This record gives sequence, C-alpha cells and structure tokens, in this order.
Amino acid sequence: MELDPQWVVGFVDGEGCFYVDVNPHQEMAIGYQVLPEFRVVQHERDVQVLYSLKRFFHCGVVRRNHEDRYELRIRKLSCLLEVVAFFERYPLKTKKQVDFRKFAQIIRMMTEKRHLAQDGLEQIIDITLTMNRADKQKAATILQDLHTKTG
Amino acid sequence: MELDPQWVVGFVDGEGCFYVDVNPHQEMAIGYQVLPEFRVVQHERDVQVLYSLKRFFHCGVVRRNHEDRYELRIRKLSCLLEVVAFFERYPLKTKKQVDFRKFAQIIRMMTEKRHLAQDGLEQIIDITLTMNRADKQKAATILQDLHTKTG
Repeated sequence: MELDPQWVVGFVDGEGCFYVDVNPHQEMAIGYQVLPEFRVVQHERDVQVLYSLKRFFHCGVVRRNHEDRYELRIRKLSCLLEVVAFFERYPLKTKKQVDFRKFAQIIRMMTEKRHLAQDGLEQIIDITLTMNRADKQKAATILQDLHTKTG
Repeated sequence: MELDPQWVVGFVDGEGCFYVDVNPHQEMAIGYQVLPEFRVVQHERDVQVLYSLKRFFHCGVVRRNHEDRYELRIRKLSCLLEVVAFFERYPLKTKKQVDFRKFAQIIRMMTEKRHLAQDGLEQIIDITLTMNRADKQKAATILQDLHTKTG
C-alpha cells in the first residue's frame, strides 16, 4: 500500500507519538541514556498500515505493543532525523506539533552529542518536562541525582 | 486552517468513527429510528481541528463529548451523503474502510427510505450487526420485537 505524505501526517496527527525517555544506564559516562522514540500504535487488524508506514519511512520495527495492539517503533537516531525532516516539510496540524518541535530539538541536540554532557542532558530533561507525557517525578529524581554527583 | 483531502483521510483513519444506531422512536410508524453518525473525537486542546473538519465538510456540529473531549458529529442525511462521496473518492487505508462501506450502504438505503419499511430496517440492522462496534444484544431485541409485531 502506497502512502501519500499528507495521509501520513493526518494519521500521525491522530495516532502518532513523539516521546523521549531518560533512563539510568551504567555504561554511559553520564549515567543516563536518552531514548527518543517515534511510535504509532494500532489494533492488530491494522498491522498492515504499520508495515506501510515502516516502508514509507524506510525505518523502524513493527512489534507487539500490548495484547491485541501492535506498534511501529523508530528509535535509531539516523532514522529519527529522517522522521524529523519529513514532519518539518509536512507539518502536523494538531497540537502534537508542539511536542514534535521539542522532539526535533532534542534529536538535533543528540546528533551534536549534547546528551552526553551534563548541561546538555539537563537541557534535554527540561524540554521533556514540558512535553505532553512528561513524567515529572522521574525527571526531578534524575536532575537531583545529576546535581548530587557534581556537587 | 486549510485541510488537504489526504490529511483528512489519514486523520479519520486514525480518529474517525462511522456508526449506525437504531433506537425505539414512537413517532416513527415502524417504531424505530435509524441514526447514522460520522464522528471525530479529540481532546479539547485540538478542538480547532474539529472546526477545520467541519469547514472542510461544510457540515456537522462541534460539541462536548465527555469531560475534556470534544467531537465533530455529522448526522444530517444530506451531509452524510457528502461524507460518503468524499471517502469513496479518497478511500480509507485502515480496516475502518470495511465499516465505512457498510455505513455507505446504509446511507444509500436511507436515501431510498428503505429504513421506514420492515424489510429495509431488518436489512440495516443485519448490516450494523457486522460492524465493528455492534451492540448484538440490542439488535437482537429489536429484530425480535419487529417480528413479534408482524406475527
């Protein structure tokens, strides 16, 4: 199934999610890993649409999300740069655009490796705090931990 | 905000709903009213998109759905005919297309006033039974009632 760019924008305006998680990670010098993710979840009856989106972006993995739901998940940074470029060319029309802009900013910071230094990581966490699905408690704990480490 | 037809298809593939309800109605000779409805529900933060869709279809009412959610609801038969014509020209890409085809069939039957006669009404109820959000219990009760009335 061939997808029209505007169809993709409309569908993602409805069903897409731009999300950035920050998790403890012992192998990272800074102690934390930034995990940005673009995700579209569908009932299994529409798994074909997820595969079409995967072909459209030439990126991502289709996998089971939860029970009868599947997701297309794009996590690779080079792929997310493509996703960001696409939605900058074809802007979202819902308020998801606000989260997308923040997501795009974080992706750009990561390509500059700013998430590997404390000030960059703190900026990224500050941005995620203003995003729609922010976990404020978790972010506060991480920021406190970063400050404790550096005194 | 100007909407592209393909964006509308993508958004409705994600967020739209084609639904046909059948309710008891004393003023109808047949005793029941067929209530087809095209609906798009959004969080209140995106109520503007619902108004854009209303302008796009030149039809419908934007109203509160539940708590912080709003809906664009199109119920007028002449408007639903326009909606059907649009999605026949620009087909949905998800399995929602299956429900849409049944919805379109019911709308056509209603323009021929077939829902006002028992055989047409029964056919419509049979179709709704195969749709995604079918209330099988309710449909069975109505069909039984129609058969009881005509012996």
